[in-house]
Amino acid sequence: LRSEYSKSDQSFLRLYNKKKLLNILRERGALSRVELAEISQLDRKTITNIVNEMLDDRQIVRQEMRQGSFGRPREMLARNADYGRSMGIDVGGTHITVAVLDFMGNLLSHVPLDLEDHGEPEGVLARCDDAVKTALAHAGLGMEHMEGIGVAFPGHIDPMTGRPALAESMPKWQNLSVPELFSRRYGKPVQAGDCSMLMAMAELWFGKGRDCKDFMVFDLGFGIGCGIVINGSIFAGCNGKAGEIGHTIVQVNGPTCKCGRRGCVEALASGWAIAKRGQEMIRANPSGILAGLCQGGSGVSSREIAMAAAAGDEGCRGLLIQAGETIGIGVANAMSLFNPMRVIIGGRLIIDNELMLGQIKRTIREKTIDVVYNDADITVSGLGQLASAMGAAAMCFEHYYV
Amino acid sequence: LRSEYSKSDQSFLRLYNKKKLLNILRERGALSRVELAEISQLDRKTITNIVNEMLDDRQIVRQEMRQGSFGRPREMLARNADYGRSMGIDVGGTHITVAVLDFMGNLLSHVPLDLEDHGEPEGVLARCDDAVKTALAHAGLGMEHMEGIGVAFPGHIDPMTGRPALAESMPKWQNLSVPELFSRRYGKPVQAGDCSMLMAMAELWFGKGRDCKDFMVFDLGFGIGCGIVINGSIFAGCNGKAGEIGHTIVQVNGPTCKCGRRGCVEALASGWAIAKRGQEMIRANPSGILAGLCQGGSGVSSREIAMAAAAGDEGCRGLLIQAGETIGIGVANAMSLFNPMRVIIGGRLIIDNELMLGQIKRTIREKTIDVVYNDADITVSGLGQLASAMGAAAMCFEHYYV
Repeated sequence: LRSEYSKSDQSFLRLYNKKKLLNILRERGALSRVELAEISQLDRKTITNIVNEMLDDRQIVRQEMRQGSFGRPREMLARNADYGRSMGIDVGGTHITVAVLDFMGNLLSHVPLDLEDHGEPEGVLARCDDAVKTALAHAGLGMEHMEGIGVAFPGHIDPMTGRPALAESMPKWQNLSVPELFSRRYGKPVQAGDCSMLMAMAELWFGKGRDCKDFMVFDLGFGIGCGIVINGSIFAGCNGKAGEIGHTIVQVNGPTCKCGRRGCVEALASGWAIAKRGQEMIRANPSGILAGLCQGGSGVSSREIAMAAAAGDEGCRGLLIQAGETIGIGVANAMSLFNPMRVIIGGRLIIDNELMLGQIKRTIREKTIDVVYNDADITVSGLGQLASAMGAAAMCFEHYYV
Repeated sequence: LRSEYSKSDQSFLRLYNKKKLLNILRERGALSRVELAEISQLDRKTITNIVNEMLDDRQIVRQEMRQGSFGRPREMLARNADYGRSMGIDVGGTHITVAVLDFMGNLLSHVPLDLEDHGEPEGVLARCDDAVKTALAHAGLGMEHMEGIGVAFPGHIDPMTGRPALAESMPKWQNLSVPELFSRRYGKPVQAGDCSMLMAMAELWFGKGRDCKDFMVFDLGFGIGCGIVINGSIFAGCNGKAGEIGHTIVQVNGPTCKCGRRGCVEALASGWAIAKRGQEMIRANPSGILAGLCQGGSGVSSREIAMAAAAGDEGCRGLLIQAGETIGIGVANAMSLFNPMRVIIGGRLIIDNELMLGQIKRTIREKTIDVVYNDADITVSGLGQLASAMGAAAMCFEHYYV
């Protein structure tokens, strides 16, 4: 028993070290064995053994030799882009986004799709099929080339049942096992996770979190969430539900939220809350700029409201500024609790919405205590609407490739 | 160079392993070598080497043999209570508390002291001398028996300058180096830290955090803060300032806080905010119950307000209920962000204040989203006003003894 125990211990250690080297190569690009040993703090012999194993498995490949300032040229090692590909599917309240990545993290294709009706799971899945097909076609690949699928969902997924725990925007999904649903449909192993946490994963792998070990990503969209990275890892809390900033309360007796409470950030400033106010504005002023843009008001979303604000609709301007202020307070509160090194503002709500983004930044500056504000740099995500889908694909690499 | 490097590496590893074993012995009490090996996952040879070194150094001692169900009796090992003692001094806005601990974590003596005037550092330090003297006398020890002193301060202490960064309640301390001040006065090495983080450390070592790796402690007193434990360690954020729940905003355009912002939890519900409202109530109603208790109103604090509320003063009851609601919302918000396994409510504000404590618990229940609430148990600290002082003494053991 004893020797078996230490045998499994050793194979765990080897897996752990492989993961470590793959993460270093992802962060830093191609490196020599000497550089890998220095950065990983593993000894030369361990590096040699593991590197040889990974070369045999084709997880990594030899690249061109690089000539140092003296001595013989060093053989450079890199992740093997062709080792495998994964697909990320981000299923939101108003969109589906599919991204296909290779093992280097290169984006091979991506398809963003708007959802009109997010009510019936069957309808959403049918739209998903379209996006998946198009994404594969763009990449010149088939589903057989995918090692696995990652699904980003708005809200925590119970790891035992696979059911979404907090997807108030998609109530008809709450008794379904998300991984099972997708796994059956596409015949692939599926991992599912919260879209805000996966957005943080995308920033960590591909975005503005690459050079930072402690940051928060604010996922501003139809719902509002945040992803937290502490010491280079996603922080999920004791049971996977950390980061529920959308349900922090900033206005006692404020408007009612989908969670049943009042004055949550999400009830005041999310995509759905803004759209709801927009509908009220159209009813109150059917000849206004917003009503004109929406041709009656059925299809109003935060996008039309941002367009109306840009066209001079004062009501829409006020709405976005107020929402920006609420979000800024929520971010400031989270910063006071976490003291992050970096804050990344992301999500679909701020795309083409400079008015709101500007107000968010101003409010963060005003409402965060100075000593905490001064520790952080505030930046905007460069991944746009692809973030959660890319994070979902990256999650697959963590699960199925290493 | 290479061999020196790995030499220092090994001595670091030995120190790390010693710390590990000492923490296991603190958590679990006396253990055999076999049990230590199992729990620590260190191999038998390493355990033997380190244990022998620690026995030689007298950090640990042999205890009575324990007869197992078969085989020869096992020698039990325990932390040596007499290996050293440390003193914790908690300097607050309205109190000084001194605690003396031995290396087992036994409380040898403690002195709580009220502060009338918390303005002039010299006056506070003179009162400190009294408390320190009394605590040593009660323990039958002298300062020469203390290995070090830990100071708990309301607010983050800058590790470079030793200056408090967020002690708005004690503005005259802001240009002083806290560790230097105490170190000079008592001729001992001094570590200083934030009182809420040290309260979390006390719960981790001695209190309701002993059997839990992920919890939050809410430090409700003259100021309001929280201490966060993730995976068994204090979480301090990127720069030591995490946990500033007192400056999270729950009421836009609420009353002005000492930080200059409006509607912070601290401006609505801290000891100082409650005392301020109490003064206003006395001015408005000089013949009320509260005015009678305070004989004019100069000395009003949350304690008199709790007494007046218990005696039937409706204004005071309303004040405490409102403050409890605000704190409950702050706690609920923090829970939504951290998804903790346990919430420990502590601090001087809830001592003999069942009315407020009850409201805090009710509001946490009402205002936390169900899926997060259901993950946590909500409990009240058993360490009372001693928590931060005990945590400060424990911090010394971490720094000077291991």
